[in-house]
Amino acid sequence: MHFFSDNTTPVSPQVMAAIAAADRADHGYDGDAWSARLDAAFSTLFETDVKALWVASGTAANCIALATLCPPYGGILTHEEAHIVTDEGGAPGFFTHGATLMTLPGEGAKLTPDAVAAKLAAMRSGVHQSPPRALSITQATEYGRAYTPAEVAALGDLARTHGIGFHMDGARFANAVAHLGCAPADVTWRAGVDALSFGCVKNGGMIGEALLYFGPDAAARAAEAKRWRKRSGHLFSKGRYLAAQLLAMVEGGLWLANARAANEAAQALAAAIPARLLHPVEANELFVRLTAGEAAQLRSDGFDFYDWGEGAVRLVTNWSQDAASVAPLAAALKALDP
Amino acid sequence: MHFFSDNTTPVSPQVMAAIAAADRADHGYDGDAWSARLDAAFSTLFETDVKALWVASGTAANCIALATLCPPYGGILTHEEAHIVTDEGGAPGFFTHGATLMTLPGEGAKLTPDAVAAKLAAMRSGVHQSPPRALSITQATEYGRAYTPAEVAALGDLARTHGIGFHMDGARFANAVAHLGCAPADVTWRAGVDALSFGCVKNGGMIGEALLYFGPDAAARAAEAKRWRKRSGHLFSKGRYLAAQLLAMVEGGLWLANARAANEAAQALAAAIPARLLHPVEANELFVRLTAGEAAQLRSDGFDFYDWGEGAVRLVTNWSQDAASVAPLAAALKALDP
Amino acid sequence: MHFFSDNTTPVSPQVMAAIAAADRADHGYDGDAWSARLDAAFSTLFETDVKALWVASGTAANCIALATLCPPYGGILTHEEAHIVTDEGGAPGFFTHGATLMTLPGEGAKLTPDAVAAKLAAMRSGVHQSPPRALSITQATEYGRAYTPAEVAALGDLARTHGIGFHMDGARFANAVAHLGCAPADVTWRAGVDALSFGCVKNGGMIGEALLYFGPDAAARAAEAKRWRKRSGHLFSKGRYLAAQLLAMVEGGLWLANARAANEAAQALAAAIPARLLHPVEANELFVRLTAGEAAQLRSDGFDFYDWGEGAVRLVTNWSQDAASVAPLAAALKALDP
Amino acid sequence: MHFFSDNTTPVSPQVMAAIAAADRADHGYDGDAWSARLDAAFSTLFETDVKALWVASGTAANCIALATLCPPYGGILTHEEAHIVTDEGGAPGFFTHGATLMTLPGEGAKLTPDAVAAKLAAMRSGVHQSPPRALSITQATEYGRAYTPAEVAALGDLARTHGIGFHMDGARFANAVAHLGCAPADVTWRAGVDALSFGCVKNGGMIGEALLYFGPDAAARAAEAKRWRKRSGHLFSKGRYLAAQLLAMVEGGLWLANARAANEAAQALAAAIPARLLHPVEANELFVRLTAGEAAQLRSDGFDFYDWGEGAVRLVTNWSQDAASVAPLAAALKALDP
Repeated sequence: MHFFSDNTTPVSPQVMAAIAAADRADHGYDGDAWSARLDAAFSTLFETDVKALWVASGTAANCIALATLCPPYGGILTHEEAHIVTDEGGAPGFFTHGATLMTLPGEGAKLTPDAVAAKLAAMRSGVHQSPPRALSITQATEYGRAYTPAEVAALGDLARTHGIGFHMDGARFANAVAHLGCAPADVTWRAGVDALSFGCVKNGGMIGEALLYFGPDAAARAAEAKRWRKRSGHLFSKGRYLAAQLLAMVEGGLWLANARAANEAAQALAAAIPARLLHPVEANELFVRLTAGEAAQLRSDGFDFYDWGEGAVRLVTNWSQDAASVAPLAAALKALDP
Repeated sequence: MHFFSDNTTPVSPQVMAAIAAADRADHGYDGDAWSARLDAAFSTLFETDVKALWVASGTAANCIALATLCPPYGGILTHEEAHIVTDEGGAPGFFTHGATLMTLPGEGAKLTPDAVAAKLAAMRSGVHQSPPRALSITQATEYGRAYTPAEVAALGDLARTHGIGFHMDGARFANAVAHLGCAPADVTWRAGVDALSFGCVKNGGMIGEALLYFGPDAAARAAEAKRWRKRSGHLFSKGRYLAAQLLAMVEGGLWLANARAANEAAQALAAAIPARLLHPVEANELFVRLTAGEAAQLRSDGFDFYDWGEGAVRLVTNWSQDAASVAPLAAALKALDP
Repeated sequence: MHFFSDNTTPVSPQVMAAIAAADRADHGYDGDAWSARLDAAFSTLFETDVKALWVASGTAANCIALATLCPPYGGILTHEEAHIVTDEGGAPGFFTHGATLMTLPGEGAKLTPDAVAAKLAAMRSGVHQSPPRALSITQATEYGRAYTPAEVAALGDLARTHGIGFHMDGARFANAVAHLGCAPADVTWRAGVDALSFGCVKNGGMIGEALLYFGPDAAARAAEAKRWRKRSGHLFSKGRYLAAQLLAMVEGGLWLANARAANEAAQALAAAIPARLLHPVEANELFVRLTAGEAAQLRSDGFDFYDWGEGAVRLVTNWSQDAASVAPLAAALKALDP
Repeated sequence: MHFFSDNTTPVSPQVMAAIAAADRADHGYDGDAWSARLDAAFSTLFETDVKALWVASGTAANCIALATLCPPYGGILTHEEAHIVTDEGGAPGFFTHGATLMTLPGEGAKLTPDAVAAKLAAMRSGVHQSPPRALSITQATEYGRAYTPAEVAALGDLARTHGIGFHMDGARFANAVAHLGCAPADVTWRAGVDALSFGCVKNGGMIGEALLYFGPDAAARAAEAKRWRKRSGHLFSKGRYLAAQLLAMVEGGLWLANARAANEAAQALAAAIPARLLHPVEANELFVRLTAGEAAQLRSDGFDFYDWGEGAVRLVTNWSQDAASVAPLAAALKALDP
C-alpha cells in the first residue's frame, strides 16, 4: 500500500466520467462549453466573483499567479520550506523573470505575521534591494498544517497595508478546508487572498489545476494570466478535458468529499502514534519519528513511503482511502509502541 | 460539420482506452511504468536511439526544443509564417529567454536552403548581431505542405555545416509522413534533424505531445530538456496519463492510420475544387479561394471553418473523418463550380 | 581621416572639463549633486516636465525604455532595419524578457503610419498573438533620415489611439533636430513620444546617454526604469561623472552646436556627389554609391569608412568636423566624377 | 569627512591622466588599442593566461560572470549576506534568467567549506531541485574579511569536485590582497577560482570594472561573456575610456598602492577602538559598536558614515586616505572610551 504521495493515486471515477462526457467535438483551447462554465462554478463555490483558469500543473498555477502579482524586479515573501522554494526546479524564477524569493522561517512551514512584518521593516527603500511585491503561503503547508481564517487574515492585512499581492498555494487546499470546517471564502478572499492555486490532481483529478483570482483586480489579472498561460505553453489545444475535470470536482462537492476521506485516513493513522508525530496532523500528511529499523519493518510489511530526513518518514493519505482502508498501517504503527 | 481545426475533434477510442488502462496507482511525475517505455517505443519507430519526453502542448514541445538548441543571445532561423512566429503568443521568447527569431520568406511556408544560406552569408560576425544557433521548420508546414526527405536533408546539411541545431515542429508530422510514404527516420535524423516535436493531440490524442531528440547529443539535450520541463511547469504529477496516450499512438501504428484518414478526407475535398486551391494539398489542410458569398452559403449548409484572409478559407480534416464522411462537403464545394 | 562612425571621435573639450569639475567626493550612485539637476536641465530643454536618467549606453537606454513600455508577452512595432533589430545582439529580448519585435518595411528606415496601421489591423485578438504594446522609431533613422514633427505626430496619434507606448531611439537625435530646426519638444512629447533615448556619446560625450520620459506617466515609468537600471547593472557607483557629461551637453547648448557641426560636414560631402547618394542627407550620415575600386582609391588616399553592402559605403561625420575640415574628402569625392 | 563608502571618492590622478591620454580617435566598442592590451596586462598581473573584459559596474561584472557559469535552471551557492543577494536589486536573477540563489550562513560573511559541503550533500538529485552550478564568494567580504589562499582553495576543491563554477566578487579584491600580502594568483586561479570581478571604481577608478576568466575554459567563457556584455547594454561605444582606466590601475601597481593606503587608514582607526570592533579589520571597512548618542556626536564633529543596524555603524576608508589623514577620526573614536 502506497503512502508516497497523493499524486500516485488513480483518478476519481466521477472525474473519469466527466472526461468521457467531454469527449466530443468542440472549439479548441478554452473556447469550449466546459471552460465557459469555470468562472460561474468557482464563483458559486467561493460566494463571490471569481475568475478561473485551468492550467497544466500546480507549478504552473503557482508561478503564473506570482508572475501576475510580482514584477521581475520585485521580491516574493514566502516560507523557506515552501514548495515554490524547494521543489519547483527554479520555476518561480522562470515565470517571474528572476524575481527574488525572500524566505522566512516559521514552525510547521507556516509564515507568521511577525516574521513578515519584521522582514518588511528591515527592507531599505531605494533600488538596491528588491521591493517585496508578493506574499505566498501554502494551505495546507508542506508539513500538513492548516492556516486558520484568522491567521490568513492577519497576513492579508499586512499584504494590503504594504500593497503586496497575496497568493495561496492550495495544492492541498481541499484538505485544509476539510480540516477547518470553514467556507472556502473564509480562508481566501475574505482574508485578503488575491490569487489561489486550487489543487485538483492530488485530490482525484488526472491533469489540470485551477488558478483563481479574487477581488477588484481579478479580471485584469486573469486576462494577464491568460497571456502567461499561452506563452508558457499551458494553453492546451483541447482544454475541455481539463475544464471538465475541474467542474466535476467543484460542481458536486467532490473536492471536499475526497479531501475528507483523505483526512479521515490521516487521522486514523495519527491516532495510532500520537507520540511519534513531528507535526500536528491537520490535513492528509503525517511526519512520523521512525528509526531506520522501524521503517524497514513497515516496508517489509508492504507499506511504502518516503524517508524525510534522519529518523523520520512522511506518510501521505489520499482520496481513495478512509479510516477502514488504512487500518492495516494503523495497526502496524501501533504495534511499534506496544 | 466542423472543419475549424484538428484540435476540435474528440479523442481516438484507442487513446481513451489507454488512459483508462493507466488509471491505477504508480509513481508520480515521470517515474511510472508508462513513461519508462517512451524511449524504447520511439526508438523502434525511428529506427535509432531516441530520447523522448512527454510535454503538455505543442507550444511547450517547440519551445523547450529551441531552448535546448539556442542560447538566449542566439538566433533562430525560421519561416516568417511559422507557428512559432505567428501563433504562440511570444512563447519562443519566453522559453529561450529572448533569443531572436530570424524570419525568412518562402513559398508554402517552406524554408529553402537558398534563403537560409543567403541569410547566413549576410550575418556579420562579432557581438552586434545575434548568431544563428537554431533552424526550425514545420512538417507539414502551416500551409499543409510536406518537406521531402531531400529537402529536409539539404537544410540539415546547412545546419550541420554552420553548427546550428535543427528543430522540426511536427504538430502534423504524421500527416506529412502519411503523404510522403517514407520512414519517419527519412525526414528526421537521417536528414539532420536534432529535435522533433511529435504531434499527438491534433491526431487523436487528448493532452500531451512528445519531444524527441536524436543523435549523439540526444541524451545530454534530453536531460537539459527535463530541467526546462520542470521549471516551465510541464512536469505533470501523474505523467502516466500522458505517456499512455503517446504509447497508444505509436506502439500500434495508430499515429499513421489516423493521419492517413485525415489526409484521405483532405484529398477527397481537394479533388472537388482543384482550381480553387491556393496550395497543393499534401496533408490535412486545404486553403481554398472562396468569395464571402460562397463561404456564407457553405456555412448555412452546416459546414464550419475559418476565413483565411480576404477571399480565402481554411479547411482542416481530421483523424475521425475519411473520404466518405466528408462527401457532403465535397459535393457542396463541387457545386460551387457547376 | 576616419569616417567609420561618430563613436570613434574623442570627447568634446567642454565635456572633458565637466568631468574634471565633477572629480570630487559626493554621494554614490545617483545621490550626487549633478544627478539631482538632470530633471531640471532636460525639463528646460524640452519645455515640459521631464524625468531623466543617465544610463551606460544607447543599447541600455533603448532597452530599458522598451521594458517599461512593453510587457514580456507584448510586441514592439519597429522598422526591420532599426538598430534595436539588427545591431543590439538581442538586447531588446533580454531587457523585455522576450517581447516580440514586429518588424515593418519602409523607405529610408522610416516607419509610415500606413504600415503601422495595416499591421495593427492585421493582428488577431486573443492570446495566440503577442499584442503590440510599444512603437519604436529612430530619429535620425539608420539611413540618416529625419522624421518631421508631422510625421512623428501621425505615428503618435496611432500609438495613443491603440494604447501603445511610443519610444524614440535618439542616438542621433541632436543631428535630427539640427536638421529640422524645430524645438526638441516638437518631435517628441508634442508629437506623442513617451520615452526618448537622448544620445550623448556619438555627439561628443565619453560614456553615458540619457533616458527621458514625458507625459503623465513619466514619474511612474522613470521610477520603474530606475529598478531596471539597477538590475541590469547600469547604476554606476560614481554616477556624477555621467550626470556631469549630460549637463555639459544640454545646459549650454553644446548638444546642438556639436550636431550642427557634424551636419555641416555631411552637407559639404553631400554637395560633392549628389548623384551618388542613396538616401537624402539630413543628419551626419551619407550612404554613397561607390565601386570597389573607387572605395579602394579613397582609402589609399587616407580616408577610412565602412562598406555598406555591395557597391556602397557609409560615411559618418562628427562633432569635431565642419565643412572646412572635411574639404579634402569632399574634393576626393568630387574627383570621382570629373 | 566622508566614511560612507569608497564610491564617494574622486578618481585617482593617474586614472584621470590615463583617460585624458586616451582622448583621441580610435575604433569603437572594444576595437581600440587600449582594450587590446587588457588580456596581456591582467595576464602579467596574475601570472597566467587571463581573458579580461571591461564592464560598466560591479553588478554587471558579477552577474555576467554568474550567467556564464550557471544555467537558468541552476543554483548559485553564496553567503546570505553577499552583495549579490542583498544589494543588487535582483540583478543576478535578471542576468541568469532566474537561477536560484542558495544562501548559506557564515561568520563575517564568509562561506565555509563545511557549510557548502553540507548543502551539497542535502540536495536531492532529479529535476525538482535546482542543481548547484556556481559558487560565489566576496573577497574581501561584506564585513571586510579576507579569505586566505588556503580558505579559497578549500572552497575551490569542493567546486571542482562537484563540477561547479567558482566566482569571486572582488569589488575590494585589492584591499584583500593588500592585507594578505600574497600574489593575486594565490587567491584566485591557483585556488580554483574561474571568474573574478576585479574592482576598480571603489579603488580610484571612475567608471568600469574588469571581469576576468582563468583556466582552460577562459577563452570560451570570455567569448560568451562578450555576448552577454553586448545584450545587457554594457558594450560602450567608446570603450577605450574604460580600458585606459583599467590599464592605469594594473600596469603600474596603482591598484595595490591605493588599496594599501585605504587599508592603512582602516588600521589606524581600528587601533583606536579595538574593543568596539564587530569584525576583525582586514580590508578598508570597520563595523563599530556605537550608541546612537556616540554616532550623533561624531557626526556633529563632521564625520559622516552609515548606521549598520541597531547600535552599530560602518566606516569605510578609501585610496585617498592614509593613517595621517584619518587621524582626526581616530582621535575622536579614541575619545569615546577615555
